[in-house]
Amino acid sequence: MLLHQSTWIEISQFLDRSRTVVIPIGSNEQHGPTGLLGTDWMCPEIIAHHAQKDADILVGPTFNIGMAQHHLGFPGTISLRPSTFIAAIGDWTRSLAAHGFEKILFLNGHGGNIATIEAAFSELYAEASFARRPAGFALKLCNWWDLEGVGELARAQFPTGHGTHATPSEIAITQWAYPDLIKTADYSPQIASSGPIREAQDFRARHPDGRMGSDPALATPEKGAELVVLAAKGLVSAVEAFSREAMPN
Amino acid sequence: MLLHQSTWIEISQFLDRSRTVVIPIGSNEQHGPTGLLGTDWMCPEIIAHHAQKDADILVGPTFNIGMAQHHLGFPGTISLRPSTFIAAIGDWTRSLAAHGFEKILFLNGHGGNIATIEAAFSELYAEASFARRPAGFALKLCNWWDLEGVGELARAQFPTGHGTHATPSEIAITQWAYPDLIKTADYSPQIASSGPIREAQDFRARHPDGRMGSDPALATPEKGAELVVLAAKGLVSAVEAFSREAMPN
Amino acid sequence: MLLHQSTWIEISQFLDRSRTVVIPIGSNEQHGPTGLLGTDWMCPEIIAHHAQKDADILVGPTFNIGMAQHHLGFPGTISLRPSTFIAAIGDWTRSLAAHGFEKILFLNGHGGNIATIEAAFSELYAEASFARRPAGFALKLCNWWDLEGVGELARAQFPTGHGTHATPSEIAITQWAYPDLIKTADYSPQIASSGPIREAQDFRARHPDGRMGSDPALATPEKGAELVVLAAKGLVSAVEAFSREAMPN
Amino acid sequence: MLLHQSTWIEISQFLDRSRTVVIPIGSNEQHGPTGLLGTDWMCPEIIAHHAQKDADILVGPTFNIGMAQHHLGFPGTISLRPSTFIAAIGDWTRSLAAHGFEKILFLNGHGGNIATIEAAFSELYAEASFARRPAGFALKLCNWWDLEGVGELARAQFPTGHGTHATPSEIAITQWAYPDLIKTADYSPQIASSGPIREAQDFRARHPDGRMGSDPALATPEKGAELVVLAAKGLVSAVEAFSREAMPN
Amino acid sequence: MLLHQSTWIEISQFLDRSRTVVIPIGSNEQHGPTGLLGTDWMCPEIIAHHAQKDADILVGPTFNIGMAQHHLGFPGTISLRPSTFIAAIGDWTRSLAAHGFEKILFLNGHGGNIATIEAAFSELYAEASFARRPAGFALKLCNWWDLEGVGELARAQFPTGHGTHATPSEIAITQWAYPDLIKTADYSPQIASSGPIREAQDFRARHPDGRMGSDPALATPEKGAELVVLAAKGLVSAVEAFSREAMPN
Amino acid sequence: MLLHQSTWIEISQFLDRSRTVVIPIGSNEQHGPTGLLGTDWMCPEIIAHHAQKDADILVGPTFNIGMAQHHLGFPGTISLRPSTFIAAIGDWTRSLAAHGFEKILFLNGHGGNIATIEAAFSELYAEASFARRPAGFALKLCNWWDLEGVGELARAQFPTGHGTHATPSEIAITQWAYPDLIKTADYSPQIASSGPIREAQDFRARHPDGRMGSDPALATPEKGAELVVLAAKGLVSAVEAFSREAMPN
Repeated sequence: MLLHQSTWIEISQFLDRSRTVVIPIGSNEQHGPTGLLGTDWMCPEIIAHHAQKDADILVGPTFNIGMAQHHLGFPGTISLRPSTFIAAIGDWTRSLAAHGFEKILFLNGHGGNIATIEAAFSELYAEASFARRPAGFALKLCNWWDLEGVGELARAQFPTGHGTHATPSEIAITQWAYPDLIKTADYSPQIASSGPIREAQDFRARHPDGRMGSDPALATPEKGAELVVLAAKGLVSAVEAFSREAMPN
Repeated sequence: MLLHQSTWIEISQFLDRSRTVVIPIGSNEQHGPTGLLGTDWMCPEIIAHHAQKDADILVGPTFNIGMAQHHLGFPGTISLRPSTFIAAIGDWTRSLAAHGFEKILFLNGHGGNIATIEAAFSELYAEASFARRPAGFALKLCNWWDLEGVGELARAQFPTGHGTHATPSEIAITQWAYPDLIKTADYSPQIASSGPIREAQDFRARHPDGRMGSDPALATPEKGAELVVLAAKGLVSAVEAFSREAMPN
Repeated sequence: MLLHQSTWIEISQFLDRSRTVVIPIGSNEQHGPTGLLGTDWMCPEIIAHHAQKDADILVGPTFNIGMAQHHLGFPGTISLRPSTFIAAIGDWTRSLAAHGFEKILFLNGHGGNIATIEAAFSELYAEASFARRPAGFALKLCNWWDLEGVGELARAQFPTGHGTHATPSEIAITQWAYPDLIKTADYSPQIASSGPIREAQDFRARHPDGRMGSDPALATPEKGAELVVLAAKGLVSAVEAFSREAMPN
Repeated sequence: MLLHQSTWIEISQFLDRSRTVVIPIGSNEQHGPTGLLGTDWMCPEIIAHHAQKDADILVGPTFNIGMAQHHLGFPGTISLRPSTFIAAIGDWTRSLAAHGFEKILFLNGHGGNIATIEAAFSELYAEASFARRPAGFALKLCNWWDLEGVGELARAQFPTGHGTHATPSEIAITQWAYPDLIKTADYSPQIASSGPIREAQDFRARHPDGRMGSDPALATPEKGAELVVLAAKGLVSAVEAFSREAMPN
Repeated sequence: MLLHQSTWIEISQFLDRSRTVVIPIGSNEQHGPTGLLGTDWMCPEIIAHHAQKDADILVGPTFNIGMAQHHLGFPGTISLRPSTFIAAIGDWTRSLAAHGFEKILFLNGHGGNIATIEAAFSELYAEASFARRPAGFALKLCNWWDLEGVGELARAQFPTGHGTHATPSEIAITQWAYPDLIKTADYSPQIASSGPIREAQDFRARHPDGRMGSDPALATPEKGAELVVLAAKGLVSAVEAFSREAMPN
Repeated sequence: MLLHQSTWIEISQFLDRSRTVVIPIGSNEQHGPTGLLGTDWMCPEIIAHHAQKDADILVGPTFNIGMAQHHLGFPGTISLRPSTFIAAIGDWTRSLAAHGFEKILFLNGHGGNIATIEAAFSELYAEASFARRPAGFALKLCNWWDLEGVGELARAQFPTGHGTHATPSEIAITQWAYPDLIKTADYSPQIASSGPIREAQDFRARHPDGRMGSDPALATPEKGAELVVLAAKGLVSAVEAFSREAMPN
């Protein structure tokens, strides 16, 4: 069930049977010469939308801009600074909690988001902690590549050249979902280099075509299909486990 | 051309021929008993995506959460507070401007966004004004219903019962784009009442089913098609006119 | 009754008979070669102070600096950025609400303030909306030129050359109130040009003497007197209507 | 010369002969049973307006709301929180500095403002200090009672019962300027008690009628006249001395 | 008793017998050619740690970075801007108040901190004042040089050359506590000049070696010992007096 | 070399031979029935102070309050909210960078700090990234337990009962440094339970004595000595490697 394709009355009814909602969250940033700028928000959206087809889970609109300051040297990247990101995650969460959602699972598609999302969770919990009261909600961050079995599958699919940015696994997922958008290039080197992440100008100097440690040529729509199916199954399990957790008194 | 379905290299090439980008912006909020929660961000997205099929304009990812505090009394509404919204529009704009975009047109789908978007523009311009330098970019807010001819068409289509929230025109657009999601209800009264907009609890007391002055039963996918076609044409014209404007020295 | 010319005991007594207060709000910004820098805060102050002479309404101190970033290219302009303006309107409102004022009417004298004042209202209401409680106060923005009959009078007085900045109507009001400060100039062109509003440097390039679409030479103190009398009457009516509105439960 | 009663062209001409501007700054807060709520912003305004009649100094609009959180227990008090106050002083200063003002003298009328105004100055200077560049402006805080000779005069006028809030000296000044607004009451005790300043509820419990250590019955318009004349003279001297200070390279 | 050298259970037990805590607060900033960068946070730490050896008072961790923007022209200075400092003091206070501490005494070692600490107190109290409720805590700022008898002692020890920055009294205290760190230099002039405090670059131009009005050569560890002993005694008295104050209802 | 025990002239001289500085950073929070509240800031301080005795590295003052909102249910815990923490890390970094430090290594002692410190780094880098310029500094986060060989040693020392909060390794370090402060208790259960981290009230319900998965009884000063020696050596290596890294052009 997609929240934005529902009416408020349908959401009201959903709340009678579940207090859990999934928010796909990612980033819009360069993904090398062939990866789509939207890769990091499309992947969790693809997985979550696929998952809700066969399971009674609720998926909200996609939070499509994240923390990508280091990619701003490449055209098309859009980034929030962490303070803005924290404020926005805060308002999304307060909105959902105001309706009675008690378990909010952010399905994340961008490694660069993790620190700030966790900081945002702490910022939200701190309101309750300073006031010595329960928060009224629990927050969970799940990276799609950490869903049950998904990391193992990706490592089996791409024993070398997976890397950490513009990876063949994420590109494979977008290839499966958007086969008309498959793009190719001659990569040089075939597997990109790695390095520390600092400001955008430094990043572009270290990674001239935007990739980090990856060989996107390894991606295929078929591998993407395998990843989506497994991740969707993992997401449903994660939602169920999270929903079963007791809330504090 | 959709920015998020492009690579950074393609955006780099686009920048060689144009410095203008369109950002669909809306809100995720209750739209009465039959309107989709995503109506206000789907409408500008539908129009902008339609427009870019036949014209060389660039459409960015959709800014899907806006200022909808007054709708928070209805489940499924997600709102940013104005201060958060201003910060986020700021970071989107600074990101795009960093790539060389000089004209950023926000195609808006939610009346409640207008004041805060304009305040966000002023916040951005003020950085330049206090520093006595050019901003380097120009910002434009276009509500889809204000695109050339669209308001006239909507008034002709819906001479009564259009109202101001959960209007038949916006619902018609989503019906055309998502015919599987058409929902019906018995409206009582057939045309909803109007009133001032204050906090959420006050709003829900005044507007028990969420509508303001509208009769959504008047919506049809055919009327939606007419609106989308005209609005898409108007958008392309607006982009062209905006692109032609000279930037200050 | 002027709040700042009263004691706290007198305000306490006023609260026993009314819960409404008027705040004149404007801007301190260039008004062309002959308009006073304070025009936009003086006009609502003049009108509100006049209105309270014959009616039992309470008028607070004037909020004299608003959102005027686009005028910063002209000496003497003082502007808040929107985020500061929102914070300040918030604290004014929270202060007044803490005393039991339930209806706060901002009588505005500057078009450039409108978006940010409305955003400020939403920011204040959002506190209540996120918390699912009543706000405890209602906020109203009235531009003096929108008070009953005032716009019609101004159009009758100035059928051409009214424009949108440094208008003869606002200058006429200050001429009536401060006849010693009437200033003259040769305007070239007689009616100034119009255009979009962006950062200060762009504004000054488009509007070299500061006017937008106006011919201030049309102003006379007599026309100002007519405007003030009518606006003051309209303000009293607006206060009475606002005061009669029921607060939500 | 009053900035808000001038045109931008006149300010431009003033800048050719001086780079100094005076901003009266105060607070709108309870002043005991007989003091006006506006006392603390009226006093510096009265003094500064008087001073500019006979000297070529420029006086800006009055910053009329300051830090008065401890007085919020008394109706009519309006307070900014320090963070808002700092932001607003910042924008006033940045606006004036953008026009070329290099010396900005805040003539203060409220003891409770001092700490936050000084913090605001540090916030502004810090922008330059972190960036290792000159600020381009110098800021000075002058309390009117610290102007040359004024404290001595007040102590001579009111050897007992001066106190620290709702003092006879500040009330005398408003009595001189607004003789129609002189109010009387039976004070009990004649001289109010003193104590620490904390939150508003604590303040009102300690100071039931709002005064701190003062006997306002000692005020007379004649004493007010003496204070204004001396303070105005002191202000002109302070402006001249400040104007003569060299700016750093 | 040192909070950070205790367990939470010991603090819980302390709260059964007292609701007062002391926070040493200072700054890390240049102190002339021979003063330690940590002087301003070491002094209150030295005094408070000494005081708690013989008295049942609780001393928290040292808040070691304050408002020192004007010293940023000298290597090693670390400064918070006032807005950051206010936020941090706020979170420290809210944490301690959440545990039931009702009296929080900040023992300050840096004159440049005073304004911002007081602004921070007002920011905290304002939360309660706007909400018309008690704060639940009282805050006190004590500069170590203002503790009973300390100023008199310092004036007796250093009748000339005390000055206001890199003073012989503060340097003497660090000499007593850290005799291995005593440093010497030829001062020129022997007593440094004074002047206004503005941005860092201006400060360094006025005070080339960092001192303000002081002759640090006058410091000796013996004088430091006298100051510490007296200040520690004064601190214990101040804590006792503060603890005895009744909290508002 | 300790920054706060140096003069500005000594730091100026240090900058001639190195551009790297180490900042110990931690948290002041409950550490179970026997761990010191200061454990998490004392450990990196102990290690860094030990390291600088035999190596020419510069160690700044300790940043002693971090992100510990989940521990606020236990007396003595002091926490910044993430937004405050980010602002403060920002000002520390900007101060150090203003002096020419190009490599700032935060030696961290608290797992709960990691996300917010990384978010703070991104916030700082983003200033440069949005402005399309180099940052001028590189930031590195090192947890002391991740220094070379330290994790392995801790696992060898404590094959069971290490856990994640109030661990025997961190307690051992404080026991070595502060042998007079060794405290004991009967733990029940001997090894504490684990669980998710949410708001403070939830945390205390899950972890009644504050420990997470640990048996602090395993700590000894001797094991602490081993850890400190190895970590200090690892820190010096990390500083050297970081210092050798080229800065971007």
